[in-house]
Amino acid sequence: MGLFSKDIKTMDDLFVHQLKDVYYAEKRILGALEDMVGKASSGELRQAFERHLVQTRNHVARVEQVFQQHGVEPETTKCPAIDGIIDEADDVSGEVEDKRVLDAALIAAAQAVEHYEIARYGTLVAWAKTLGRPDCASILQQTLDEEKATDEALTSLAELHVNATAR
Amino acid sequence: MGLFSKDIKTMDDLFVHQLKDVYYAEKRILGALEDMVGKASSGELRQAFERHLVQTRNHVARVEQVFQQHGVEPETTKCPAIDGIIDEADDVSGEVEDKRVLDAALIAAAQAVEHYEIARYGTLVAWAKTLGRPDCASILQQTLDEEKATDEALTSLAELHVNATAR
Repeated sequence: MGLFSKDIKTMDDLFVHQLKDVYYAEKRILGALEDMVGKASSGELRQAFERHLVQTRNHVARVEQVFQQHGVEPETTKCPAIDGIIDEADDVSGEVEDKRVLDAALIAAAQAVEHYEIARYGTLVAWAKTLGRPDCASILQQTLDEEKATDEALTSLAELHVNATAR
Repeated sequence: MGLFSKDIKTMDDLFVHQLKDVYYAEKRILGALEDMVGKASSGELRQAFERHLVQTRNHVARVEQVFQQHGVEPETTKCPAIDGIIDEADDVSGEVEDKRVLDAALIAAAQAVEHYEIARYGTLVAWAKTLGRPDCASILQQTLDEEKATDEALTSLAELHVNATAR
C-alpha cells in the first residue's frame, strides 16, 4: 500500500486487503506449527499440533480458492499482528525449561493464534456476505469452524492434561 | 526477562508473566480505544467504543487486584502481540478514507483486540484454577465475560448497521 495515498476505497478493497492479511498469517502459522510440533512434549499435544498443521495447509488452499473466485491474484500483505503473536510465543517459550510448563505455554500461544484467526475469518465471512459473495463466505466459514474447533480442543487438552500435570 | 537465562521455571512464573503481558496490553488498548472513539463516524459505534473504554479502565484495575492478591508488585512486560495487533489497525485505518468503510475496518480491528484478550484471559482463568487460586480466577473471569460480550456486541453492530451501509 502507498504511504501517502488512501489505497482502501471500498468494502471490496477492504475485503481483499483482509484476505491478503490472512494469506500471510496462514503461511506464517504453518512455520510456527512445525516449530511447535518439535517443542511439544505431551504426545496428545504434539498430535493436536500435527492435525492442525494438516488443516492449516488446507486453509491456505481455501484462501487461494477465495482469491480465485473473487477474481484477484493471490498475494500476501505483511501482517504485524500475527508477526507479534508468533514473536511473543517464541520469546516466552524460549524462557521455559520445564517440559510441562512449556506445554502449557505452547497451548496458550496456539490459542492466541487461533483467536486471531477466529476474529479475522469471522470478519471475512461477514464482509463476503455484505459484498454479495455467499460462495466465498461459505468457504471461509469452513475454516472459521475448524479454527473454533481447534481452540476448543486446545482448551480441553489444557484443562484435562497439561495444566493438571504442571502444577 | 534475561536473554540467556530461562526465567520462567514454574506454572506460577508463567501465570505472573502472562499477567504482566495483559497488564501491558490493557494499557495499550486504553490508548487505542481513545483513538478509535475519535475515528468512528457511526454514533452507535462511537458509543460502543466509549462503553468499552470505561470497561477497560476497570480491567486494568482488576489486573492490579489480581497482582495484589497473588502477592506480586504490578508490572508490565512488553507484549509484541498487542503491539502488532494495534499497529496493524493503525496501518489499515490510515489507508481508508470513506467513513463507512473506516467504521467496518475499526470494528474488525476492535474484534481482533477482543479475541486477543479472550485468548489471554481464558488462559489466565485456567492457570489461576490450576494454581489453586479460585479468587484470582473469579476476578479474571469477570473480565473474560465482558470481553466476550463486547465481541458479540461488535458482531451485531457490524451485521446490522455498518457493513450494510458500506456496500
